Amino acid sequence: MTETTDGSTPGWFTRTELETIRGQLPILYVNAVPVRVDDAGSVTHVGLLLGVAPDGTISRAVVSGRVLYHERLRDALLRHLEKDLGPMALPRIPVSLQPFTVAESFPTPGVTPFTDPRQHAVAMAYVVPVAGDCQPRQDTLDLVWLTPEEAASPAVQQEMTGGQDVLLRQALAHVGRLP
Amino acid sequence: MTETTDGSTPGWFTRTELETIRGQLPILYVNAVPVRVDDAGSVTHVGLLLGVAPDGTISRAVVSGRVLYHERLRDALLRHLEKDLGPMALPRIPVSLQPFTVAESFPTPGVTPFTDPRQHAVAMAYVVPVAGDCQPRQDTLDLVWLTPEEAASPAVQQEMTGGQDVLLRQALAHVGRLP
Amino acid sequence: MTETTDGSTPGWFTRTELETIRGQLPILYVNAVPVRVDDAGSVTHVGLLLGVAPDGTISRAVVSGRVLYHERLRDALLRHLEKDLGPMALPRIPVSLQPFTVAESFPTPGVTPFTDPRQHAVAMAYVVPVAGDCQPRQDTLDLVWLTPEEAASPAVQQEMTGGQDVLLRQALAHVGRLP
Amino acid sequence: MTETTDGSTPGWFTRTELETIRGQLPILYVNAVPVRVDDAGSVTHVGLLLGVAPDGTISRAVVSGRVLYHERLRDALLRHLEKDLGPMALPRIPVSLQPFTVAESFPTPGVTPFTDPRQHAVAMAYVVPVAGDCQPRQDTLDLVWLTPEEAASPAVQQEMTGGQDVLLRQALAHVGRLP
Repeated sequence: MTETTDGSTPGWFTRTELETIRGQLPILYVNAVPVRVDDAGSVTHVGLLLGVAPDGTISRAVVSGRVLYHERLRDALLRHLEKDLGPMALPRIPVSLQPFTVAESFPTPGVTPFTDPRQHAVAMAYVVPVAGDCQPRQDTLDLVWLTPEEAASPAVQQEMTGGQDVLLRQALAHVGRLP
Repeated sequence: MTETTDGSTPGWFTRTELETIRGQLPILYVNAVPVRVDDAGSVTHVGLLLGVAPDGTISRAVVSGRVLYHERLRDALLRHLEKDLGPMALPRIPVSLQPFTVAESFPTPGVTPFTDPRQHAVAMAYVVPVAGDCQPRQDTLDLVWLTPEEAASPAVQQEMTGGQDVLLRQALAHVGRLP
Repeated sequence: MTETTDGSTPGWFTRTELETIRGQLPILYVNAVPVRVDDAGSVTHVGLLLGVAPDGTISRAVVSGRVLYHERLRDALLRHLEKDLGPMALPRIPVSLQPFTVAESFPTPGVTPFTDPRQHAVAMAYVVPVAGDCQPRQDTLDLVWLTPEEAASPAVQQEMTGGQDVLLRQALAHVGRLP
Repeated sequence: MTETTDGSTPGWFTRTELETIRGQLPILYVNAVPVRVDDAGSVTHVGLLLGVAPDGTISRAVVSGRVLYHERLRDALLRHLEKDLGPMALPRIPVSLQPFTVAESFPTPGVTPFTDPRQHAVAMAYVVPVAGDCQPRQDTLDLVWLTPEEAASPAVQQEMTGGQDVLLRQALAHVGRLP
């Protein structure tokens, strides 16, 4: 457990270590639904990442990532938003850590609407307005901005896996834009 | 009931009409606690208005005002923030209308922590980051930015009346900055 | 403004007075989505009232009603739940007044998902577990308990008017049971 | 990593393994503030556990515990409430997993109001009404029910360590009972 891929950084594991822990402990995540808002704070568009899943299928997803050892949720949100949307996105991290929901993903389908074959992940979920220019990172095919109506449409929802479609509609419900 | 001070605008009443209604119906308000935040969304300062109460005493208060007929809560927040902080304050109205609390003020003390001798007022309360320059309006003596520790100090708390001290501490609790 | 239907009770108006005020001020409401929960607090069923609308159509609705002068939101919730579900429903009023959403209904369609031809109503919305026996009141045709899946189905959703279908799905999203 | 104290149960570690992981990953917790409520849902009393800390000092605390692998937050809440309050406490687990706050404890003081010398712990915090009889477990000295005013008093607050005093006041703020 003491060796890490980069030799010493706490919070980083070898791939084998992380695999082992993932079978024995819930792993803490943050999810961020990036949105564009008007002057009155009303959501006009939702940002979805287009990526290639390990099995080769194309799927849409919100920003999501692990919280590291000794990292605040706020800093984890900033880090993953910058990683996925680029350094000029200017995300407005929420003033309160109260999430709009907690998404519990289990390897076993059916326990909750959320599944993750790799692990038991528990994600604090936030809606995050972004005001700047967004540039998807290299391994993301695209970033699209959809209206709430488009984002909740069957065509888009079926491109989201692991319960991300449910999470997105929960976010829309929270901001009063569920069609 | 049909005559108004400006002749016709719906949502405006003569002073007498409003007085009468205030004795018979709860009046809807919005409260906004203006804050300065850092890049990670953490509150660094709270904005408090310094004003002269009808009885001549000086007191501190958050932004507060009535919601008009056919006005959205979002638009009422924008209007009152602009009225109290000026047109360059650049308030970031919350993406969700879920308030951090609902402050119910009664003319009778003791029903809740909040009192209002004029009326039964029910205020949706929000924490609102402001990014721009703030200029207090004419009938406000000053606008001060205090750290959470200063804002929750006994010296400042005792200058807030009607339960505004409680509301401010509820806001600090919500954003994780209650000392 | 001083005469009331019962002579003197503050908070009650003649029908004419209430009609007039409804055209000039937002009216404060509480909405309650009654639910059955299991031991772990997970929602198993949602209660919907079946009633006859003024135009003769049958529609489904959640518990909803006006907040009276000098009435706390908690007491308004209790009163309307008892009125609609009977005195043995044993509702568990939330410990926090933070609503899951605020439903703003306007006479004009399209401003928000919620409409109310009579007035501008602003409703604090809560999910309320009920543990006892429920008996719908006289002018309610029936009270049905539906699973979240049934409640969110198109067949049921289209029987809800004025945006109640949206409110119900917002409630399901909040409790993690949006299908 | 594969051996556990009881031989095989997933989610359980030897003391050494857990110590090692605690230095490398945030550990997920749930916190529950037990309360007594009146018929209108208003908090009348807060339950605090009296225990002996490892250093021999006596301190007061809310219910708190780790979330196990493949355990839902709801079930972790139930398990820890039963462990600390006994099997007849009849806790009313919240219908929504949205916590009133997320308490991030770090081994390093000053990052947040919360510290935990053992680990980086992230706790979802809930207020949980309990309706039944509460019997503190063997290694708890006592369980006391205090009014919100008593619980927030300096005498009680200084008996809470690691930021539990702040968490308790955040809970009181959330339910509208912060003195």
